[in-house]
Amino acid sequence: MSWAEENAAMLDALARTPGWSALEGRPDDDTLTAILDEAARLAAAVIWPQDAQGDRIGARLADGRVTLPPGSRDAFAALADGGWLALELPEALGGAGLPLAVFAAVNPAFERASPALMMAAGSTRAAARLLAEHGDLETRDDWVPALAAGERTATICISEPGAGSDVGRIRTRAVRTPDGWRIGGEKIWISFGDHDLTERIGHCVLARSTDAPGTRGLSLFLVERGPGVTCTRIEEKMGLHASPTCALLFEDAPARLIGTEGRGLPQLFTMIRQMRLTVGTQGLGVALRCLAHSRAYAAERCQGGPPDAPPVPIATHPDIRRQLDGLAARIDLFRLALLETAVLADLPGKDDARLCALTLPLVKTFGAELASDAAGTAMMVLGGAGYTREHPVEQALRDARVFAIYEGTTGMQAQDFLLRQALSAGGLKVFLSRARAECAASPERLALLDVFAAFAEDLRAASRPAQLAAADPAMRAGWVAVQAWLSMRLDDPRPFLATAPQRLALHMAEAWAAMSFEERS
Amino acid sequence: MSWAEENAAMLDALARTPGWSALEGRPDDDTLTAILDEAARLAAAVIWPQDAQGDRIGARLADGRVTLPPGSRDAFAALADGGWLALELPEALGGAGLPLAVFAAVNPAFERASPALMMAAGSTRAAARLLAEHGDLETRDDWVPALAAGERTATICISEPGAGSDVGRIRTRAVRTPDGWRIGGEKIWISFGDHDLTERIGHCVLARSTDAPGTRGLSLFLVERGPGVTCTRIEEKMGLHASPTCALLFEDAPARLIGTEGRGLPQLFTMIRQMRLTVGTQGLGVALRCLAHSRAYAAERCQGGPPDAPPVPIATHPDIRRQLDGLAARIDLFRLALLETAVLADLPGKDDARLCALTLPLVKTFGAELASDAAGTAMMVLGGAGYTREHPVEQALRDARVFAIYEGTTGMQAQDFLLRQALSAGGLKVFLSRARAECAASPERLALLDVFAAFAEDLRAASRPAQLAAADPAMRAGWVAVQAWLSMRLDDPRPFLATAPQRLALHMAEAWAAMSFEERS
Repeated sequence: MSWAEENAAMLDALARTPGWSALEGRPDDDTLTAILDEAARLAAAVIWPQDAQGDRIGARLADGRVTLPPGSRDAFAALADGGWLALELPEALGGAGLPLAVFAAVNPAFERASPALMMAAGSTRAAARLLAEHGDLETRDDWVPALAAGERTATICISEPGAGSDVGRIRTRAVRTPDGWRIGGEKIWISFGDHDLTERIGHCVLARSTDAPGTRGLSLFLVERGPGVTCTRIEEKMGLHASPTCALLFEDAPARLIGTEGRGLPQLFTMIRQMRLTVGTQGLGVALRCLAHSRAYAAERCQGGPPDAPPVPIATHPDIRRQLDGLAARIDLFRLALLETAVLADLPGKDDARLCALTLPLVKTFGAELASDAAGTAMMVLGGAGYTREHPVEQALRDARVFAIYEGTTGMQAQDFLLRQALSAGGLKVFLSRARAECAASPERLALLDVFAAFAEDLRAASRPAQLAAADPAMRAGWVAVQAWLSMRLDDPRPFLATAPQRLALHMAEAWAAMSFEERS
Repeated sequence: MSWAEENAAMLDALARTPGWSALEGRPDDDTLTAILDEAARLAAAVIWPQDAQGDRIGARLADGRVTLPPGSRDAFAALADGGWLALELPEALGGAGLPLAVFAAVNPAFERASPALMMAAGSTRAAARLLAEHGDLETRDDWVPALAAGERTATICISEPGAGSDVGRIRTRAVRTPDGWRIGGEKIWISFGDHDLTERIGHCVLARSTDAPGTRGLSLFLVERGPGVTCTRIEEKMGLHASPTCALLFEDAPARLIGTEGRGLPQLFTMIRQMRLTVGTQGLGVALRCLAHSRAYAAERCQGGPPDAPPVPIATHPDIRRQLDGLAARIDLFRLALLETAVLADLPGKDDARLCALTLPLVKTFGAELASDAAGTAMMVLGGAGYTREHPVEQALRDARVFAIYEGTTGMQAQDFLLRQALSAGGLKVFLSRARAECAASPERLALLDVFAAFAEDLRAASRPAQLAAADPAMRAGWVAVQAWLSMRLDDPRPFLATAPQRLALHMAEAWAAMSFEERS
């Protein structure tokens, strides 16, 4: 899959996404083609060449300051200069005012080139979006254009040692003083919490400002790098070495309230949506890297064939072909899901929002798994060579492994999908209604949707612990159902349809087993 | 799963393996308990403590000599001094003369502790076995006791840059001179091809000694480290850093023929069987490490629960329990398959050998996948923490990833399973006959076996390219069928049986799809 082929596939998939043509402010095809081409050019020429070196050297912490590997700075500057950090921000705030779907279509090229570097872009654009929506005018106008231009960067600070997925237990305190708010506490897992890309870094910090229990006492604050903010540690990770994962200590640090006190968590939602969608683009990007590299390798590497004739390219071996074609087919379906979700995010209807919320945990989760699986497939195609640093596959495998963890683990996504979006918020109904309409001419897909619908209704009647135990396999069943729907948009849906009923049946059986064991325990 | 619990589980599984009681030379239960206890003690006290450091520091090549990380030497000496390198070698050659099943029962403890270090043991004992069976008396008596005692080590040199899985294309030449055989050529992927554990290293080299085409011109030679043997490179790998993977250049190196000229490849078979079984023990060992670590973490790490009460251990979360219990259930079944295969290897019957050859690629493949999946599960249980070097999970994931590649990739195992063992060598018939007999009282298992039997017969009728395309999913279907059989030996087979029919159906559908796409392409 060359960069140009992937751009053509992306344009084609977008054209097959019905909501796309209804989006306000969407660019015409020529403009979009030019955008994708330029992104691919930049990704290949500037972002990609620093990636392997960034992995080797990694970020370093010394005297409280983080130094990034050489190359990060120029690559980030190129992203900023090209306006790539702010495609979807309003024009008035320095952005290009484009739909989120354009971001979703463009970003995989950059993630393919360097997911570690793109962590800086991800948190910065998420914070920009947060401040654009909820910051007061002064904060907004001071920060958002600077973030859009890459002159400053930003982070999102949520997790603490005692509060990971369980944000209700956040203990970082915000105190109102005569001189304004002050923050004290420790935040961990902060991507690009310190670095040398820009001098100014804004931290969007979720902190407790009242004694209201759980998440209701949480508010959002902007704290700037400077006195009272210390990077105490960077994690030694399996991958993403060029992305410093920081522990930040806030000691009486000056802060500005973002938005409304006590509304910290709800205000994060738009940002979280964008972050999870970004993970989807990471997953697609890494999968594309792995497919492209292993295809090229398989076309060149010769092994096997009759011993008295020259060896043949392994791309002709049926087992290799099965693996590469299977990966390509998964990528094609995932691309449609990513774009559908991004388009829905910008459509105004309430049902669009409900469906977007339902497909988002799928895009996040299965984007992550697509990347890991693609790296695994590529490694099997390359054999021992893929296990070495001679090829960009083992790094992809190490980098991608965290996609399923950050921005909400797979367990959290499954709870969100099943309990909140499918069963409570009405996402299931919207999904079934739209999917059945689009699949009206396909009895086999309608049958799959019916099976899943009956299964979901049975889940609705189960106990809460049983639902929690079944959430993961239920989400996997949901992913089969969503792919059944989206496969209507493929020219050749056979690779998916050939095994979809069995896949759905397996995930349902897993869910029933999990419920039954939970009920007995 | 503490070391003691695992030893109890291993003893119990061995007692449930019918062939065990028929084995000649098997130790009584008290002796075996003492062996397992001592192995676990040594693994925990000596082998494990050097593992993380070994990963960090890795092996280094300088001036043609490889230096291992500190700790490797003492740990290897402890293995040697305890006689652990030679459990299954004949007593006359310095071994303990125990059945291979004892090795299979003991080795997971060492692999759990340090798979990288155990690579030195793996190739040394494989070479010892090879020389014990095929070496001339002088070579045998000179080398095997020294290998058994760990005074020397040995390697198996098969792969070359142009001949990986495709051994028929080996180009390393052996030439007979008045002073004996001389070897010239390059071998790659040689584990512990050079190191500082022992001064003397014997290389068992597969080389071309005649002009007969393909594999028929290949003979085995013993070449000792010294003049004419140069370690030119060690691979930079994703994991197993303390296990140097060497490229060896042989230049007019003095060599001794092992066994019969032209019989190099067939002579390797016993050794290959042991190596593949060893991968099974590696897989089980790493899975046990991951299960033990993630269980302990889940019991201590508190998150969630009502916000006004203290957080609860995540081990009580239904989704965490589902993951850990699911992994434990897979481990229980795999342990039975490993032991069954090892016991079969020492039984004298032809049908025992046929069935052993059928289950061996399953043990190799699904041991490898068990380890990778266990590391993945552990990482999801630990969340972000599992992605860091603070926990021995990310190393397990990196180390385990190569298990599916070396000693024959999954693609090679699938071909062996389907084409050679199941369809040609009669393994399928033996398997079905024995499995049906043991499952006579279980209609649901008999039904699964019937489904698989019919599927296998359909595969027999397919074209060769279609069979090759379907080999991987067919092997997975075979693994479901073999587990259906072995699950008769479990106290609680429900976790397996709850999803086995759906799993079998899915793999069969995957196989049919692969065949159908292959036929069309």
